[in-house]
Amino acid sequence: MIDESQNQDREEGLALAPKFDADGLVTCVATDVWTGDVLMVAHMNEEALRRTIETGEAWYYSRSRGSLWKKGESSGHTQRVTEMRVDCDQDAVWIRVEQNGPGACHTGRQSCFYRAVPLRQTGPVTLEFRNADRAFDPHAIYGEK
Amino acid sequence: MIDESQNQDREEGLALAPKFDADGLVTCVATDVWTGDVLMVAHMNEEALRRTIETGEAWYYSRSRGSLWKKGESSGHTQRVTEMRVDCDQDAVWIRVEQNGPGACHTGRQSCFYRAVPLRQTGPVTLEFRNADRAFDPHAIYGEK
Repeated sequence: MIDESQNQDREEGLALAPKFDADGLVTCVATDVWTGDVLMVAHMNEEALRRTIETGEAWYYSRSRGSLWKKGESSGHTQRVTEMRVDCDQDAVWIRVEQNGPGACHTGRQSCFYRAVPLRQTGPVTLEFRNADRAFDPHAIYGEK
Repeated sequence: MIDESQNQDREEGLALAPKFDADGLVTCVATDVWTGDVLMVAHMNEEALRRTIETGEAWYYSRSRGSLWKKGESSGHTQRVTEMRVDCDQDAVWIRVEQNGPGACHTGRQSCFYRAVPLRQTGPVTLEFRNADRAFDPHAIYGEK
């Protein structure tokens, strides 16, 4: 049941009241404070959100690994948060970050969004690389294949 | 079971292969092409994604209403997409948009992210309004209370 007054408080109030989903998560968008580019979209649980607020460094919750992680804990590519915003219904946060190290993406790119989708066309879509040169070697950083 | 070769194709290939969640959705971040601000975070199902690609106008899927919607269909505040990107694992898209009309948020603000979360503090959080003046009157536009 939707509680309209609760929704109203969430939208117009000044209390942080995150609307976590069934898995206990909110969506987090991280943009680069210098370029404005979207670096990544990830998730935060209550603990990740609290730690990010308290430390000013980005913490996330990995759905695939089922665990809290500090961005950069393996790679050293931490994110210093310069600003955090919450959206109208408080199920998403936006952080502006100073990305330490060359890139935010585990594939070695500066941003996770390194492919463009051509618009105004029908039929099968062929993506196009954008700024897709690797800023670092993920195999060297993460020791993956 | 995670299929590593499928993941590899998804990350490095040029085929659009969205990884829809259990509800058939991907996350969509819309940023303002002029200011770089995040305007909204929403969701797209397969049909919304296809229509957005074909028309270059933003379509979304409303989880609360359980239906496809063209952004601006009620308010006239449509979004012309100037660029679409897809992220590494193809479960999120980023669109840069020209926002028609004064605002993207149903509350009347330019952006849904009109409150800041103070950082580097512990304890209860008090949000702070940012650019929270209403760009339009949502009651007049949507006829809601």
